[in-house]
Amino acid sequence: MATPAQFNLTDSIAVLTRTPAALNAMLRGLPEIWAGRNEGGESWSAFDIVGHLIFGERTDWMPRTRIILENGEARPFDRFDRFAQFKESQGKSLGQLLDEFTGLRSENLTALEALNLQPEDLARRGRHPELGMVTLSQLLATWAVHDLTHVHQLSRVMAHQYRDAVGPWSIYLGVLHCAGHSS
Amino acid sequence: MATPAQFNLTDSIAVLTRTPAALNAMLRGLPEIWAGRNEGGESWSAFDIVGHLIFGERTDWMPRTRIILENGEARPFDRFDRFAQFKESQGKSLGQLLDEFTGLRSENLTALEALNLQPEDLARRGRHPELGMVTLSQLLATWAVHDLTHVHQLSRVMAHQYRDAVGPWSIYLGVLHCAGHSS
Repeated sequence: MATPAQFNLTDSIAVLTRTPAALNAMLRGLPEIWAGRNEGGESWSAFDIVGHLIFGERTDWMPRTRIILENGEARPFDRFDRFAQFKESQGKSLGQLLDEFTGLRSENLTALEALNLQPEDLARRGRHPELGMVTLSQLLATWAVHDLTHVHQLSRVMAHQYRDAVGPWSIYLGVLHCAGHSS
Repeated sequence: MATPAQFNLTDSIAVLTRTPAALNAMLRGLPEIWAGRNEGGESWSAFDIVGHLIFGERTDWMPRTRIILENGEARPFDRFDRFAQFKESQGKSLGQLLDEFTGLRSENLTALEALNLQPEDLARRGRHPELGMVTLSQLLATWAVHDLTHVHQLSRVMAHQYRDAVGPWSIYLGVLHCAGHSS
């Protein structure tokens, strides 16, 4: 196994900056079969996933960054509502959600850069309500990997719609055998 | 479980058209930690994945479409070399590979649309050297899902680099628990 990378703020921002354009290129204008369908039951569609990412921009990443910098471990983070998008996205189009995500991400990255974080800031500690002690660098690394986990989920949800259409090729297409660990 | 979608040529082209821009937005200019690293051993980096997609454009999807239309089941497809990119991509930059993929995909979709395929064409049969009888619609559905399987892989390979940096959040990030079924 290759050695895992250390957290680096510039590398993390490189991912965070690109996600809105990547989702925009992948999703805007897609037919309903790809954008609106889920994997059955309470699972999420592409539309739901973008709504979830918006809610994270509003309530998770930068608010938690500020809690760490201002309160340290003394004040636990607020809990994150993983289902808020079902209410918040109502009546919106996928294009509107993509625009909203793009705008919020851009504002948040501007705010992040304005903090001019130093190595000693990145080592500062906060308290997650379930995970316990975490550091600011872990929070910011998670922000980037959270984007990737939802790109991973999105590709799986879309592929799922064609699970029968591919016929015998199914056995070669790993995305059709993903057990949904990234929902 | 929601009912799986039937193959539809327009829907399939909607995915195939978007993949080059999605990869471009996600990958162009990324630091080496994201673009050049793999999951250890013989696994693939983002750079390798784009090279693999290029080779598919050159040798797999449209050549096999033409074999079905011209020869039906009488002539099996040529085997696909899953490792060709390690030689073909040598000396190229990721930006060059993204440009090459974009150009080839565009040419292939132009050629596909020029075939003006009708429902009876989509039901035509070919012979896969390992899978046996397949239809043209299955081949074209697989082309789209193959894009998605490599987006799925790509997000996993990138996330893998930060598997330690996220600290205790690892348990919430499904992409870090993907068993590599989409390589």
